[in-house]
Amino acid sequence: MQTASGYDSGNIFAKIIRGEAPCFKVYEDQHTLAFMDIMPQVEGHTLVIPKFGASDLFSLPADDLAATMLTTQRVAAAVKEAFAAPGVMIAQLNGAAAGQTVFHLHFHILPRFNGIDLQMHVRGMGAKEVLAGHAERIRQLLESH
Amino acid sequence: MQTASGYDSGNIFAKIIRGEAPCFKVYEDQHTLAFMDIMPQVEGHTLVIPKFGASDLFSLPADDLAATMLTTQRVAAAVKEAFAAPGVMIAQLNGAAAGQTVFHLHFHILPRFNGIDLQMHVRGMGAKEVLAGHAERIRQLLESH
Repeated sequence: MQTASGYDSGNIFAKIIRGEAPCFKVYEDQHTLAFMDIMPQVEGHTLVIPKFGASDLFSLPADDLAATMLTTQRVAAAVKEAFAAPGVMIAQLNGAAAGQTVFHLHFHILPRFNGIDLQMHVRGMGAKEVLAGHAERIRQLLESH
Repeated sequence: MQTASGYDSGNIFAKIIRGEAPCFKVYEDQHTLAFMDIMPQVEGHTLVIPKFGASDLFSLPADDLAATMLTTQRVAAAVKEAFAAPGVMIAQLNGAAAGQTVFHLHFHILPRFNGIDLQMHVRGMGAKEVLAGHAERIRQLLESH
């Protein structure tokens, strides 16, 4: 199993990839694997992972990222149809502070049914000067790396 | 602007891409654009979009999807550093039932700070026979398409 530096290969998803732990498999190819979340937030909650050992989004090589998203796209369409879901949410958590509990990168596919389950926006607009400052802060980091 | 069939090019993100509406730009390349969400859920809330006109994940061509995720990966790392965020959540909503409000595919980058902001899992395990049945339902659809 190829891994990024600092990756801990003792996690449950690494065990699933190596065939040391079972899963309810949905799809597998050379670079990716999809299976049911065993603690589903909603019926049809499915996970997609790269076989490359990366703890989070930041340490996944570009080719593996592309493969992981193609599988996510394909499996999400099947989940949508399988559960007759009018909506589908894709979520990916990086770090314990974001709610990540298994430290192998995974994309959640979550069927959504009844209107807005997750309010992504507050009602008010952000102050323009604050947003402009934030954009500048991120741009400078992108340019400096 | 290249678009998928059924895409409505009157939405605000299409206007931003065409330069007809302003944004607080963070990053731009040939295939993608990143800018601040003007109704931020949290400080640093940033959006990444493909320039290809796709209303959701399902209608984006593979090359554009790969480019969008590379930009998401790169910008998310900068957002994490810019806001000293221990965690980062990536979210992407498909359909009004999932909370999508602008019908041009977009990935949300959300800094996360204080423990678990979004509880992705219920506490209990799913029943094994139910999960096995769900996996089978999705697998059959994948094989039939």
